[in-house]
Amino acid sequence: MGTDIERYIEGIRTGDRAVLGRAITLVESDRADDRAPAQALLRAVLPLTGGAHRIGISGVPGVGKSTFIDRFGCRLVDAGHRVAVLAVDPSSSRTRGSILGDKTRMEELSQRDTAFIRPSPSAGAAGGVARKTRESILICEAAGYDVVLVETVGVGQSETLVADMVDVFLVLMLTGAGDELQGIKRGILELADIVAVNKADGANVKAARATRNELESALRLFRPPGHEPWHPRVVTCSAASGAGLEEIWHLIAEHHQTLQQSGDLQQRRNQQRLRWMWSLVDDAVMAAVRVHPAVAAGLEQLESDVLGGRTTATAAAETILEAMEIER
Amino acid sequence: MGTDIERYIEGIRTGDRAVLGRAITLVESDRADDRAPAQALLRAVLPLTGGAHRIGISGVPGVGKSTFIDRFGCRLVDAGHRVAVLAVDPSSSRTRGSILGDKTRMEELSQRDTAFIRPSPSAGAAGGVARKTRESILICEAAGYDVVLVETVGVGQSETLVADMVDVFLVLMLTGAGDELQGIKRGILELADIVAVNKADGANVKAARATRNELESALRLFRPPGHEPWHPRVVTCSAASGAGLEEIWHLIAEHHQTLQQSGDLQQRRNQQRLRWMWSLVDDAVMAAVRVHPAVAAGLEQLESDVLGGRTTATAAAETILEAMEIER
Repeated sequence: MGTDIERYIEGIRTGDRAVLGRAITLVESDRADDRAPAQALLRAVLPLTGGAHRIGISGVPGVGKSTFIDRFGCRLVDAGHRVAVLAVDPSSSRTRGSILGDKTRMEELSQRDTAFIRPSPSAGAAGGVARKTRESILICEAAGYDVVLVETVGVGQSETLVADMVDVFLVLMLTGAGDELQGIKRGILELADIVAVNKADGANVKAARATRNELESALRLFRPPGHEPWHPRVVTCSAASGAGLEEIWHLIAEHHQTLQQSGDLQQRRNQQRLRWMWSLVDDAVMAAVRVHPAVAAGLEQLESDVLGGRTTATAAAETILEAMEIER
Repeated sequence: MGTDIERYIEGIRTGDRAVLGRAITLVESDRADDRAPAQALLRAVLPLTGGAHRIGISGVPGVGKSTFIDRFGCRLVDAGHRVAVLAVDPSSSRTRGSILGDKTRMEELSQRDTAFIRPSPSAGAAGGVARKTRESILICEAAGYDVVLVETVGVGQSETLVADMVDVFLVLMLTGAGDELQGIKRGILELADIVAVNKADGANVKAARATRNELESALRLFRPPGHEPWHPRVVTCSAASGAGLEEIWHLIAEHHQTLQQSGDLQQRRNQQRLRWMWSLVDDAVMAAVRVHPAVAAGLEQLESDVLGGRTTATAAAETILEAMEIER
């Protein structure tokens, strides 16, 4: 194992894409045997991490995420950046796979030498998709990628998961009819640092700008300036024509600089790490509670009694805690 | 204790306000000796609970909450309702008390026989202010109060706590200068079922209506219709003149009816109870983790290492879980 890890480390340091792919496969593995080597690898490359812009990208199916990432990614590559594209799709499975991070949908970017595209890991045991992606970000950074895009499709809680592992969260939107925006998911605008109204081309330009203005007003109400180190920005763009992509990169750079200068960037990453640690502990501990011998047998009935209002929440909680001999 | 509980139950059934106050004091008590009697009382009156409109009311200091509750409460009392006013103020302490639920600020309502006003319990151990208030709601319902208002001042996470214990959440707001609304707290508009722009009187009426329109547009964007059983409504009102208070009650009644007919009201309450149970279990279990002998000694250093990026979150989580012999 020692020699294997050495080979992984060497390949990562030199930016060998094949080794990078295998390292991420190791980190994504659900096999119990792979966990110790994966953690040893992460430990070894940890000092090399942290050097990328971690950018989350979300939007409903049809908004043009793949085209956006393709064109945006190429611009960055052509400007000298090394760009990695990861994806979080909790519905991804080993057999079904995922359309996210699908190279065939990012035709040009997948042909660039200094781009690395990886489909979403499958949801397995042991922390699931979020854990695997967080660790893959670290591996990509260690391999010298200075931009890591994490794509998510907006299924379930995936935006919240991604927003908590990146520095900046970009939401792509479409123009809707009248006041309504298409497919906007509740809570997503709370997470956005930058909102880009896509497909602002041809006859749609005017509508896109109107949508932009509405979103800006709404964000000013919902997220008033002064409360956060960065107030969310709204722009229009056309991934197809390339319009607005430059501006988006400038905003990302401005966001990065603003937060870095105030110390907020490091603080944000630190707190993300700490929250993630406790999240992993909490998940494992609460899973253990549910299967605890003294708890498991009566749990279904207890939950049913709570839902049915036949017992108070407090009494039910005390039943569980007493069974585990824990003080409330 | 048997006879005492019987006396409490009897006093609650007959709507005896003095007994009601003592029962709530018992439920709010942090003393270990009081916990069994309190839970016995709750168990005994549980079948009598559930019969009130549970209404959360939030807004920044200065928005006019006390005047609003005073006038709104009086209208309900005069229309034949029995109105209880509770408060959640996590900053309340046994010595300092709280201005919330302060009878002197609800002059008229405090003089009505069929109104019951209770200041916020102090944050103590054992589940804190939220637990005490949830249980007090049950006691008030058992005593025949058919409207329970739970006031919160918007400190920390208190709105989220209150929103998760009521049927409907009302946010009072002020008109601001230009596009900006005064003191709007991030996330609060996600929780609101009804928003009332207060102080819509005299020269301020026009500005209040403009604010109403802006909020409505923003809510349509952020919380598009169709996603929830009830889409949030925005009105103007003047607690001082009484304008709009009738409309607010109609909206509350409409909300209640809509959710009751669809089964969502019961579902909402059931899920609140279940979430609350697991929240209590989680709090106690995670507190036990932190003081676990095998964990406590090294925890500070471990958290410091995670914050400082010297170890990965996964490795740190595994350290804790291994120490407690729990599988990840």
